[in-house]
Formats: sequence, structure tokens, C-alpha cells
Amino acid sequence: MTAVSDRPTRVTPDNPTINTTYLSEHLLGRWADLRKIARTLAQDERLIRDPHLAMDEHRERVLAQLKILVTEAQVLRAFPTRLGGKDDAGGGIAGFEELVAADPSLQIKSGVQWGLFCAAIHHLGTEEQQDRLLQDAMELTVPGAFAMTEIGHGSDVASIATTATFDPEHGDFILNTPFRAAWKDYLGNAALHGTAAVVFAQLITRGVNHGVHAFYVPIREVNDDGTAGPCLPGIQSEDDGLKGGLNGIDNGRLAFTNVRVPRDNLLARYGSVDDNGDYTSPIDSPGRRFFTMLGSLVQGRVSLDGAAGVASKIALTTAITYGNQRRQFTGASEHDETVLMDYQTHQRRLLPLLAEVYAGHFAHDRLLDLFHAVFSEEGMDTPETREDLETMAAALKPTSTWRALHTLQTAREACGGAGFMAENRLVGLRQDLDIYVTFEGDNTVLLQLVGKRLLTDYAKQFRDIDGIGMARFVVERAADTVLYKTPLNRTVQSIRDSGLRRRSASELREEETQRELLTDRVNTMVERLAQALRPASKMPQDQAAALFNSHQAELIDAAKAHADLLQWEAFTKALLDIDDEDTRTVLTWVRDLFGLHTIEKNLAWYLIHGRMSAQRAETVTSYIDRLLLRLRPHAQDLIDSFGLDDGLVRATIATGVEQQRQDEARAYYRKQRASGDAPIAEKAMKKSAR
Amino acid sequence: MTAVSDRPTRVTPDNPTINTTYLSEHLLGRWADLRKIARTLAQDERLIRDPHLAMDEHRERVLAQLKILVTEAQVLRAFPTRLGGKDDAGGGIAGFEELVAADPSLQIKSGVQWGLFCAAIHHLGTEEQQDRLLQDAMELTVPGAFAMTEIGHGSDVASIATTATFDPEHGDFILNTPFRAAWKDYLGNAALHGTAAVVFAQLITRGVNHGVHAFYVPIREVNDDGTAGPCLPGIQSEDDGLKGGLNGIDNGRLAFTNVRVPRDNLLARYGSVDDNGDYTSPIDSPGRRFFTMLGSLVQGRVSLDGAAGVASKIALTTAITYGNQRRQFTGASEHDETVLMDYQTHQRRLLPLLAEVYAGHFAHDRLLDLFHAVFSEEGMDTPETREDLETMAAALKPTSTWRALHTLQTAREACGGAGFMAENRLVGLRQDLDIYVTFEGDNTVLLQLVGKRLLTDYAKQFRDIDGIGMARFVVERAADTVLYKTPLNRTVQSIRDSGLRRRSASELREEETQRELLTDRVNTMVERLAQALRPASKMPQDQAAALFNSHQAELIDAAKAHADLLQWEAFTKALLDIDDEDTRTVLTWVRDLFGLHTIEKNLAWYLIHGRMSAQRAETVTSYIDRLLLRLRPHAQDLIDSFGLDDGLVRATIATGVEQQRQDEARAYYRKQRASGDAPIAEKAMKKSAR
Repeated sequence: MTAVSDRPTRVTPDNPTINTTYLSEHLLGRWADLRKIARTLAQDERLIRDPHLAMDEHRERVLAQLKILVTEAQVLRAFPTRLGGKDDAGGGIAGFEELVAADPSLQIKSGVQWGLFCAAIHHLGTEEQQDRLLQDAMELTVPGAFAMTEIGHGSDVASIATTATFDPEHGDFILNTPFRAAWKDYLGNAALHGTAAVVFAQLITRGVNHGVHAFYVPIREVNDDGTAGPCLPGIQSEDDGLKGGLNGIDNGRLAFTNVRVPRDNLLARYGSVDDNGDYTSPIDSPGRRFFTMLGSLVQGRVSLDGAAGVASKIALTTAITYGNQRRQFTGASEHDETVLMDYQTHQRRLLPLLAEVYAGHFAHDRLLDLFHAVFSEEGMDTPETREDLETMAAALKPTSTWRALHTLQTAREACGGAGFMAENRLVGLRQDLDIYVTFEGDNTVLLQLVGKRLLTDYAKQFRDIDGIGMARFVVERAADTVLYKTPLNRTVQSIRDSGLRRRSASELREEETQRELLTDRVNTMVERLAQALRPASKMPQDQAAALFNSHQAELIDAAKAHADLLQWEAFTKALLDIDDEDTRTVLTWVRDLFGLHTIEKNLAWYLIHGRMSAQRAETVTSYIDRLLLRLRPHAQDLIDSFGLDDGLVRATIATGVEQQRQDEARAYYRKQRASGDAPIAEKAMKKSAR
Repeated sequence: MTAVSDRPTRVTPDNPTINTTYLSEHLLGRWADLRKIARTLAQDERLIRDPHLAMDEHRERVLAQLKILVTEAQVLRAFPTRLGGKDDAGGGIAGFEELVAADPSLQIKSGVQWGLFCAAIHHLGTEEQQDRLLQDAMELTVPGAFAMTEIGHGSDVASIATTATFDPEHGDFILNTPFRAAWKDYLGNAALHGTAAVVFAQLITRGVNHGVHAFYVPIREVNDDGTAGPCLPGIQSEDDGLKGGLNGIDNGRLAFTNVRVPRDNLLARYGSVDDNGDYTSPIDSPGRRFFTMLGSLVQGRVSLDGAAGVASKIALTTAITYGNQRRQFTGASEHDETVLMDYQTHQRRLLPLLAEVYAGHFAHDRLLDLFHAVFSEEGMDTPETREDLETMAAALKPTSTWRALHTLQTAREACGGAGFMAENRLVGLRQDLDIYVTFEGDNTVLLQLVGKRLLTDYAKQFRDIDGIGMARFVVERAADTVLYKTPLNRTVQSIRDSGLRRRSASELREEETQRELLTDRVNTMVERLAQALRPASKMPQDQAAALFNSHQAELIDAAKAHADLLQWEAFTKALLDIDDEDTRTVLTWVRDLFGLHTIEKNLAWYLIHGRMSAQRAETVTSYIDRLLLRLRPHAQDLIDSFGLDDGLVRATIATGVEQQRQDEARAYYRKQRASGDAPIAEKAMKKSAR
């Protein structure tokens, strides 16, 4: 938050001003206090990233940092009150996602410990198991690995090959890794620090495979000082070594050879085995049971969505602050070079991303609300709300994590060579966040889940005309307005009729026009897909698979369109809560930019499907150009409203040094001109000699 | 080049086979022998990247590697024969760009030494200066920095602030850094290893500033063992420290305080100062002189274009080889999981990039031809060929460097978590190549140069009906066919007339249809821009600047469209040289994929401008889908034809380990099924119990 001399270079007649104090407080949202605590911690010298550390030192430092978090952060809020938590799922995530500003390795290693290892005991274990196993894990007495992914199976968890076979003679399970591809891989805490793991394996008893279940398994001896010792018998560990980022985490592989696990270490909330080896589960369908177990671990995706947003905000804070100070090439004036943010290209590169990041922020708020309701509000944990939550997370996590990479890269390029220096942090953050797009659910796979859900909802509307779809929760909670419409095709015809007649750019600014265009796209894509895929139900498996495969790209496009709409609706709804009128005016322009930028990206679709005439389509781009000019003077305020202190951004070029350098250089030339000592340019001399 | 069991999964009726032996030899091109030597070196244990080295060790290792190159590589080919070179500009670059496979730090540090520091002495110095200064620089006795960029000025070199003021009393120049923004920055060899630098500064004599000139300046003492000692008096150095990549290079800053430079250390080919301080130059116009000096350093851009192509080939070799072995999720068959490359999404992500990389390869061949002609062929160095060369480099370098980042990232994501491991190299290469998009000319700035050139050519056609434009050289050299047409608007009307009537997908396959669509787009964009900007010539500077700025994004789009066309024409022309018929057939499909993929990306433009009907536009995507299916069985052959040995790719996952793991897992399950010991799935049990 630097003073920028060049803030309002263009003034519109009705020139509103953002109330940044108001907006930055407002954006902190429902768990403002927890976010503030986390932000203070995230700039604590003890916790911030030191990019110079080698991998080994970085790993030890992050482990030590986690111990600080146990006592000073709010990392245990999500856990049961009786065990020292606060039963506050949303608050736990809100604080956690801010930690990315300190060091993504710290954030993700915390995520491994509390968001995965502890959360698995919490959500998949019985109360007895929680009482027995959770406390030590929560307090980091037992650092733990979350042993789900295998070398051979990441996205397809149902097909993992590790087996846990019940031995009725000894009354325990025998854990085995049958071949190399079945080694657990990429597990934080597995290479060095973990002394236990939650291991996912095919539960086999009495000759029947009951599918993937989780087992609590000690994996290493514990030294007298509490650190991890050698692996326990039957357990092998390998180090994943250097990675593209997140090198503060000791990712590694684990394999099991006839490792015996006591019967009561099967985390038994959704399935248990008795003395005789008889299996029982509260959920009869093996498929639904599997998805319920996995679904209870959705918090990883929710928190990545938030953390990706924080990283994007840091990137834009750096690039726009620098872009408001840096000058290059003379343009309008002979002596003054042009401020980068005044270039159309610079605006085009950064401001639509700023709009996207705002949209992502408001959508994440809704996601966190829903997450909190399911896990911490009485009576809200139903199969339907869980499914809504999982779908929303599966739509937003890919969107925000890809956006973070794109934003960090665009910011880095917009800062030129300075953006490549580690001290300005853009490159380091990008390296660390790279893996966010494929872990906790590969983005492409997640979007296919969303696409399939859209198809299911579409099919349902024929059975149930009141079909409420994914926004169910929000509809129930906020009866005032529908966050977005489900794939019902009501509005399509009216758009078809009126689309070609509407031509003025001003109509594109209208909320209802944007909503119609964005909604119609999702509806139509889903409708077409459903029609194209209908024959699959009557085909043999191989043909059906081929048909489905031939529409995979469209399925993903539909899911992306849905995520766009979701964010647009969340943004639009959030505008209602902005009490400051000027601020709301500017944010409405930002929302318009998000809407039109989204429509512009898919302009060919609107044209091909007759939703827009060529003339109207051209006005989309020109209206965006107008919006960019209108928003340009507010860019710094919009960034400052993210409320990220220098201690969180920690980019040298965003601290005002560039402004100082520019001032010094311009003062030098001014003085030289005034003194009459300035050398005359050869060109000018030749001109005057003619 | 791994054996892939799953190569041709789909067979078309007329099923051609690529002759990979032929094609890989053919792709080595004009300087095949030099490329082979460089490729052998690039997998030499002494030269390859060790990702575990800390910055300091990496820097020392790379310096030592450069000494190996002096004797064992062909790094001196471009220099004068009388000094031990071969006057072989093209051959020098060809070998150099392959070195990126060893370690981009090695490549770029070589580029600093021979491509910039030595090249500046070579191209900007007189023969006397070459004789006096070049030998030690060539042999690395003097490691040197290329001190052009300043903290305050990167893209706008003309505005650098370092001054070299002639002192007639002592007969030498006085070098000064007037303020902080004038410090030289980001210079390889400046932090540690350089003992001299070519310093760019405003040459001032007799009160006149003659613009930017280059000076040879010793900067550090030389220790007895030849290493760099402390800075010489008046010179300050700072270390840029850790960067996002290329940490094997000691980038740093330099400042000068009253540093005296002998008069004959002004590199004087394009300007000199006599005893009296009188300035003379063979080029009268200061503007043209400046661009000529800078233009003689174009080889950096040319070689980055080639190196970016090599990196992209490595990325695709890794991702497609892995994608042909890796399986995930069952689809068509109950027991066999689906090979990744059989998924439409995977094809959509990787195969159009493969087509782009082929197009980039052939375009680079043309660029290198032109470069070689200008700098090593008798009579080819004219202002026109130079301008053509600079424009072509300015179009291709942004295209290929952005493509490399996108390709490396797509490949990394397509390999999932494995792609994030340093041992598979994708992340390291991406980190190193990141800066390629903003150094040696910021990509966005370069594309604006191209756009301006297109506008100039457009204006020229009204004066000169034979206007030959950028392809001049190629036209002269290869009278058989025009590589591409300049912005002459001849074909537009016929497309306008016929566009809406053409509907079948098969026509999109026709070369002439693709050419018309791609050419028309460049022509029309340039024409519209020229019309929009015409009023600027009669406006005051500030208004003209504002008008120009409001079309900056379109200017860049036009330059990108031009680069697309350039590559398409180079690809099409290259097909004529493919003697093997089957190979040519498959490569023609690849060319079609490149053309249609380019058209698809800009589909909205074609629709808005009435060049395509909505129906025809939809067939673009469906025809691409067909091409993807047709090309899928050839993907491995197309990759293998890049001829990159395992020792160049050096990605564990591309060596066949995944195939071994898959084979082992499938054998395990096969055996289990055959034995009758396989546990029955709960789901199957329940079904049979019903």
C-alpha cells in the first residue's frame, strides 16, 4: 500500500471514489478476526519464507514453524471442542488459507497435518478413535502422512492397489503393497518427519473387497526427543527429492510388507469389521460409501481455492503498484515517460485479472459459507448439501488455481526483469503454487465431475420440475435471490428472439443481459451434451465410453462455463452487501468487466449459436475498452482494498522504491534542463541546422 | 525414444507410417553436423544441469563449463576466420541453441559471453578493435558483461541514462551513472566473473548527445590465476542474487563514477570521435544509426527462438511418451485402464501444441537461413534484409518463447504429480525459460515493432505497387513460391464473396482455404488499423499518442496473426522438401491441425468479420477433432522424429519406467484372476446375491 502520485490520471464526469478502509474491512468477511490473526502471523519473521534455504534446511524450518502454529495460530479450530478445538470448520479454513502469504510450504505442510491427516481421523474415525488418536496428531506430537495417492493411481482413488486383508486368526489387518505402482507417493511427512500415517487401502475380509478404507498406521519409531526415527518393520520409505516448488515439505513414498494393523485402527465411521471378520457399514452402497468418505475430505479443495485467491491478490498488488510507478517510453509528453498502467496493453493484461480475482473472492466466500454449514451447523450435513459442496469446490478450485498461475505469470511479465528476481516473490509463489492445479484433485478431472453433475441435474429436471440443483443450499439460506439458476432452459428462447435485435453497448452493461448470456451458455451446452450422450445408455460399454470420450472437451467447457456463472452470480449478489455507494459503483464496473471479459472469451460460441449478431459481438470488446479506461484510475484503490500489508506482499518493487527512482531521475533531468547544461540531442541539432 | 506397446491403437483405412529415421535426419536441417556435435555435448556429464546445486556452486560450475565449450564446442564459428572463427553465423547459432538441453544457464551464459559481449566487439567494433579485443574475449580469458539494460530502462534502450562524455583535455571518455535508475542491471557476468564489459552509454561530445554507443570497459582486476578480482576504481557492482531460474548465471548491477575510457575503446564501426572531440559516423541519421547498431545484435533473438523450440520438444517428448504408457480409469474395458493419450482431453491439450512446435521448427529454419545470409553471405547485408530479419525475429521470438512456457506447463500438468518432480525436468526448464519472454526484447514490445512494420508496409503499397514487404529475402532466394504475402489486400474480396457459401469441413483441409483465411486476417487487421490510425498524422503529439494507445491491443493482435501466417507458410513450404510420401502425408495433417487450430483460436474474428458462416465455423472444431483422432496413432513417431535421446530429455518418466510399472501391475492382476484367488468386489457380490 504505497502512496502513488499518479493515481487518478483520468477523471470521469461522475467520478466515484472507493472507500478503501471500508472495502478492505468488508472483504475480510465473516471470519475477519481470524483472518487478521493469521495475517499478522503470516508476516512474522519466524514464519516467512527464506528463498535462500536449501531443501534440507527449508524442510526443517517448516517443521519448526508448524510447532509455532500449534500454540500461536488457530489451526485447531475445526476440531471437536472436547479435544481443544472449536467445532468451527469455516474459521479453521479462513485462517489457514491466509498462511500462504508466509510460505506456501508452511501452508501445505499444515494442510497435510491438520487438513488431511488429522481431518481423516476426525471425519473417518469413530468418537473413540478421535479420543484416542486425534490429540497427539493435533498437537503435532505425531506428525502424520496422508497416504492415499499411489504411484499408479492419483485421480482414480477407487483403483488404488494397497491391500488391507483381515486375518481372522490374529484379529488384525495385514497391509501390503503388491507391486511398484502401488507404492504410496507424493506424501508430505513421508520422507522424514511422519511417525504415523492414515493409509488408504482396499479392505478385504472373508474373500470380499469392500473398497477403499482408511487405517491409522504408525510408520516410524519415535526418538527420545520426539523426532522421527527409523521406519518400523515392514515399512519402506523413499524421498521424492527436489520438486518444482514446495521444497519445504518432505514428500516421499511408502510401501508396506505384511504390516499388521490392529482391528480398531481401521477408521470405522463408515465401515467396520468385527472379530469374525464380518464387515458392516452405515452406508449400504459401496459407491456412495466411497464418495461419502472422500467427500468428508473436501476441505483441502476449499482451502486451496482461498489460498490461490490470496496468492493472486499478492501478484496483482505487486504488478499494479509497480505499474503505477514505473515509466517507459515517452508518449504524450516530450519529457515525461508514460506510466505503465496507462498503456492499453498493460490495462488489458492486468485489469480483467483483477476483475476475475474479485469474482473469485466473492465466490469463495459463498463456498466457505456452505462448507461451514455442512460441517459445523446443526442439521445442515445432508447428502444433498454435501453433494452441492463437493460440486462447488470442484468447480472453483480448478478455476482459482489456474487463475493464480496465470496471474502470477502475467504479473511477473508485467514487471519485466524485476519480476524474475526472487526478492519480488512472484516467481517463488508461482513455483510453489504450480502443483495446486493437479493435487487435491487434478483440475481437469474435477471439472469432469462438475460436468457430470450438470448432466445429472439436467436429467433430473424431467423427473422433478422443481429441480433445484446445485444452488439448493444458497436458495434455502438466502431466500431473497437465487444465486444462480440450474440447467433449466427457460430463458433461452427469449434470448434467441431478442439477441439479434439488441445492439447497443449500453445493454451489455445491464445485469440482466449479462446474466442471460452467461446462464444461457451453460444451459445450452448441457442440453446439447445431454442430447449427444443420450444413446450411450443403450450402448455396450466400449462404445459408450468412446461416445463419452468424444465429448470430453465439451463436458469440461460446460463445467468451466458453470464456474464462470457461479462467480458472476456470487459477485452480483455481493454487490448488494456493499453499503458505500461510490464503492458499489466502482465494484459494479468491476463486475461488468468480469462478465464481459468472460463473454468475450467465448464470443465465438455466442456467434455460432446465434445468441449475438456480429455487430453486437464487436461492441463487447469496445465496451471492455471503455470499462478499462473507467477503472484504470481506481486500480490502485482496488488493490489496496485487498488490505495486504507490505509485510504480506514482501516484494521490493511494490514498496515504493521504483517511485523514488523515478522521482530522482526526473529531478536530475529537470535540474539539468533548468541549468542549461543539458547536451543537445544530435537530431535536434541537425534539425535546427537545416 | 522408448518402445511403446500402445502405438497404433486406431488405424485409418489408408494408414501411412512416418519414417522416423528419415524425418529425424531431415529435421536436423542445414547444419545437421553441428547440431549433432552440440547434442552429444549437451548430454555430457560435465555439462548437464545438476538441479541440487545451490546458487553459488551452480554459478562456478557453469563458468567451468564455458571453458570446456571454448575447446570442445563450436562456439567460435560465427567469428572472423582470421581470429580462429569460421565466419559461419548460422552454424554458430545452430549449435548454440541445442545447448539449452544441457542447462539453460549454460546456454545463456554462453550467450552473454559469445552472443552479446563478443558479438558486440565483433559487430560494433572496427577491424583494429576486433584484432585487439576479440581474441581474449572469444577464448574466455576475459569473461565479459553486456551492459546495456539499466534499472530504469530495459525495452527503451534509446533512453538509457549512463553517460560517456568526451574530455578533450585528456582525450578520453568519462563514464558516469547519474542516478540509481541508471545502474546497469540484470547483466550476466556482472556480479562475479566479468573482468570487462561492453557498456552502452549516451555519447556526449562538444555539448552534443550523439545517442547510445558501446564502449569496451575493463571492470575488475584480474588475479594471477586469471579469475576476476575486486572492481576497478570508480566501478561498483551488486549481485542480483537469487532469481526465478537461470541461477547458474551471476547476474548483477554495475555503476560508474568518473570512469575514464580510452578514446579507442569506443566501439567505432558506426561512430567515432577524433582527438578534437569531433564526432563522425557512416550513418547520418541518428535514428537509423541507433537501430543499425542494435540490429547487429539480433542473433540473441534468433537463438532464443531456436532454444525455445528445443525446450518445447523436450517437454512434448516427455509428456507424450508418458501419456502413451500411463493408464488411469477404466473406460472401454473392464480390466484395462485407458491410456492417457486416448483421452480426447489429453489429445486436445498436447497434439495442437505438437503441431505448433513443428510449425515453429520450420519457421525457425527460415529465420536461421535469413540470419546466415545477412551476416555470412556475400552481398546479402543490406538495410532491407536486415529489416526483414529483425522483423521476422521480432515476430518469432515472442511466439516460440511464450509457446515454450505454455508447452512446458501443459506437459507438466499432463504428467500430474510426476511432472512436478525435479527429476523429470519440466519444472526446472520452465523456471529457466521464464525470463526468455521478457529478455532480449520484451515479447509485448517486440510484437509492437512487428505491428508497426506491418503498418509501414501497408502504407508503402500505395506508393509502390510491387511492394515486397517482409518476405523479400525469401522471394528472392526461392523464386518458386512466395513464403507469404505481404499486407496486400488482393484476396479479401473473393473470400468475402465465397466465404459464406463454403461449408464442408473438407474444404478447410484445403491448403488454399487455410492460406486465404490466415492471410485475409492479417490483411484486414492491418487495413483497419491503418484507417483507424490515419488521423494521428495530423494530431498534436499527446492526442496522437492517445489514439495510438487506444489501438495497442489490436496492433499486437495483428502482429500475432502475422506470426501465425509466417509459421503456416514456412510449414507449407517445408512439406515440399519431404521426400518420403507417407511422412509427408502425416505432416500435412499436422500442418492442417496447426492451421485449423490457429483459425479456431480466432473464430470470433472470422465470424464478426463475415469471413465464415456460423455453420462453417462449427465444422472447424469438428474437423480438428477428426484430425486429432487421425494423428493420435502417430504421436509417438512425431515425437521420436525430434531425435532427442534419453540423454537430452533426461526425464525419468520418459524412459519406460511407467510402462514397466503398468506391465507389472497388469501381470499381477491377470495372475490373480487366473488363480481364482482374487477377492470378489462387494458390489459384484451384492448384485449376484439379488
